[in-house]
Amino acid sequence: MTHLLIIGGSDAGISAALRAREVDPTIIATVVMVDAFPNYSICGLPFYISGEVPDWRSLAHRTRNEIESEGIRLLLNHTARSIHPDSKTVEVENAAGQMQAIAYDRLVIATGAVPIRPPIVGINLPGVYLLHTMEDSFRIHEHVTERYPKTVLIVGGGYIGLEMADALRHRGMQVTLVEMAETVLPVTVDTGLGRVVEDELRRNDVEVIRQVAIETIHPAGSSLAVSGSQGFQRTVDLVLVVVGVRPFSELAVAAGIQTGVRGAIRVSRRMETSAPDIYAAGDCVETWHRVANQNTYMPLGTTAHKQGRIAGENAAGGRREFAGSLGTQVVKVFDLAIARTGLREKEALESGFNPFSTASKTWDHKAYYPGAQEILIRVTGDRQSGRLLGAQMLGHWQSEIAKRIDIFATALFHEMKLEAIADLDLSYTPPISSPWDPVQISAQAWVKAQENHVSLNKEQVD
Amino acid sequence: MTHLLIIGGSDAGISAALRAREVDPTIIATVVMVDAFPNYSICGLPFYISGEVPDWRSLAHRTRNEIESEGIRLLLNHTARSIHPDSKTVEVENAAGQMQAIAYDRLVIATGAVPIRPPIVGINLPGVYLLHTMEDSFRIHEHVTERYPKTVLIVGGGYIGLEMADALRHRGMQVTLVEMAETVLPVTVDTGLGRVVEDELRRNDVEVIRQVAIETIHPAGSSLAVSGSQGFQRTVDLVLVVVGVRPFSELAVAAGIQTGVRGAIRVSRRMETSAPDIYAAGDCVETWHRVANQNTYMPLGTTAHKQGRIAGENAAGGRREFAGSLGTQVVKVFDLAIARTGLREKEALESGFNPFSTASKTWDHKAYYPGAQEILIRVTGDRQSGRLLGAQMLGHWQSEIAKRIDIFATALFHEMKLEAIADLDLSYTPPISSPWDPVQISAQAWVKAQENHVSLNKEQVD
Repeated sequence: MTHLLIIGGSDAGISAALRAREVDPTIIATVVMVDAFPNYSICGLPFYISGEVPDWRSLAHRTRNEIESEGIRLLLNHTARSIHPDSKTVEVENAAGQMQAIAYDRLVIATGAVPIRPPIVGINLPGVYLLHTMEDSFRIHEHVTERYPKTVLIVGGGYIGLEMADALRHRGMQVTLVEMAETVLPVTVDTGLGRVVEDELRRNDVEVIRQVAIETIHPAGSSLAVSGSQGFQRTVDLVLVVVGVRPFSELAVAAGIQTGVRGAIRVSRRMETSAPDIYAAGDCVETWHRVANQNTYMPLGTTAHKQGRIAGENAAGGRREFAGSLGTQVVKVFDLAIARTGLREKEALESGFNPFSTASKTWDHKAYYPGAQEILIRVTGDRQSGRLLGAQMLGHWQSEIAKRIDIFATALFHEMKLEAIADLDLSYTPPISSPWDPVQISAQAWVKAQENHVSLNKEQVD
Repeated sequence: MTHLLIIGGSDAGISAALRAREVDPTIIATVVMVDAFPNYSICGLPFYISGEVPDWRSLAHRTRNEIESEGIRLLLNHTARSIHPDSKTVEVENAAGQMQAIAYDRLVIATGAVPIRPPIVGINLPGVYLLHTMEDSFRIHEHVTERYPKTVLIVGGGYIGLEMADALRHRGMQVTLVEMAETVLPVTVDTGLGRVVEDELRRNDVEVIRQVAIETIHPAGSSLAVSGSQGFQRTVDLVLVVVGVRPFSELAVAAGIQTGVRGAIRVSRRMETSAPDIYAAGDCVETWHRVANQNTYMPLGTTAHKQGRIAGENAAGGRREFAGSLGTQVVKVFDLAIARTGLREKEALESGFNPFSTASKTWDHKAYYPGAQEILIRVTGDRQSGRLLGAQMLGHWQSEIAKRIDIFATALFHEMKLEAIADLDLSYTPPISSPWDPVQISAQAWVKAQENHVSLNKEQVD
């Protein structure tokens, strides 16, 4: 019987274990994990801290019992210390500090990511928190619940920073959000859309500070004095540092396994590492981008689930390939949903395309029906081929923004040309859409702008 | 200069005119139309009658001025009486009864559909209405507004019947809905989902009567006595007959132009009729179904816009082909959205597939986040090829049902296999979806059921 060992009990690890057992029910699957929270929805942490999810236990995608009833052995509170590809063993330390060597036939590394700790003086002070694990969220939750902080400073305007701004406003706190880049959500959307998100934050009484790097945090009585570039100074009760993550690939590196972009573990499209019988998946690996046709580092829960499933299937003898990521994502911030898929102009340029982008503003449904809201869409396509390369979208969170970006994502998956998007037979009823969906209107706007641009160029040439 | 004449000023006709002028700004475009309401949103009529759209003028997709400012000549209240392909003229009658012959270089027939008048004795009585045109809706609106009917009987449980049930409940009327088939929405969804829609109607105090054919309507004082099969009897203040439409192709037939399915005008994928330089588009033509790969009759506003655009482009010298319909549609009924795309099992059988269907029930987003609602999805695929053939979906109207069916529609457009739908990179955030979107969960359920079914068959063979 094959023994499949998995390091990491979050999305990728548990997906791998489940899929392996599904493909080959005789397989023995063991998951070694550092904490006692298998398959928890890390994406749900802000909603636990906000109070919208009263019981943290409900954050489990699957309960421990559900996982174990699938015949998966969970070694909770066990830390993998080293991988030995030659002897096919992993050294594991339990909570009591005892070491044991566990033999494997196949191994899946799903060690995830760790939060980036920016070089801020005082980042380890009490009252300063990172947010990545269940334990982190317990600590923040306890601080917020028991010590009633009135003011918080959030370092980082990525999607977790924004979700936490929303969550802590929900708790009634005064929130200051500090982002180093030109706008919030710099990794997700272009500046113009980032500005609209900032307006939404301000409308909800979040103070937004841009282009400031936080440098030092000092104790100031029971508060914290925070200062940064450009003379920035605030005194707050709580500081949250959420500036992104990096792959946790140390174990793999020590075992001689190859890494690539940003130190993430290099994997084939079958999720094989450079070592025999060792697979890797999730936030610790490089991800193949389907449009850019190159490896990137893009830690997303959706991708972790897919990659884990493929690693599990292949570890159980299958031959499935990862179809690639499009970087599709959506985040809800107060009443807005902000979504994207594919490449932005800058990324498209870097990938060798000749990108061209247009912005559109449409109603989410026929304006005569009550409650119409505007949707902003930014479409990027390739001038030469007319291919769709990516889309960004922003609107009311009940304007079906998320699943509209998924129409683009599905089109992108099939390398559609923007002109052909008008051919898609999409659903319409006045309370929900228009005879041409906003997705199609924005694609047509791109085609028209591109035609005009082309004829302009011709005139210039003539 | 080319003169493009268009008969019909609704979605297909105006789309044709606009596109022709866009492709060739020198073209002269004239639209002959029977009423004074160019490019009105017929799909919006129920919301005008409900009172949700207070001013009928806002139902215009484009105003008369907007259309005319595009250089399109509108002949309002003009009725085309005959088409003469040999002399390339159309005989047109104005409101005063005067005839004139209008010459054309290219003609687009966009005469739309007419409501079916079922063989009900008394269908012409005062207080009995069909609903298809602006004029119809004015009459109903006036009756409802000025005569305060308390009770209404709706004949027909298709999507307009259901929207009108919703609209007239909104007006505070007692509503009885009578459908001849086994469930409501028989053309849109399977029986199981139809039952759920009936529950929603009843929850909103609509009386639902199934498998009854209305036969006679008699005056009964100021009311109407309605009777039907199975001893059905009701006395109501108002009767609405909405049992579907048929193509209005009489003009084309009289001109010797070929027709096909249900008497609709036969067209090529370039929207050419059998007569030279005559195109046709919209509710009066056959529609090529992309999955069934055969002509059907499927009058939908989305399709009319697309076909009109193609007819206009080709009439202006282009060579664009209609990419085909998938029959994608959505309707909102009280708090539900009901949607479908592609083929149902019966239709798939008729089209030569070996269909297999599975039903799934999932949450619209992570259940831990407040407000989660269930989505029902029915997926149909082909046993041999594993290809997606169609999907039906039902859930809360704010559960992104419409744009989730569009993910299926976009997949269907590209002939995706159900197994590959798990490869799509779709967006996720806990308030809106799950790491595997409901679309993917339902596709995976199909694959699993199909695998089990296949292995069952193997065992039976062995």
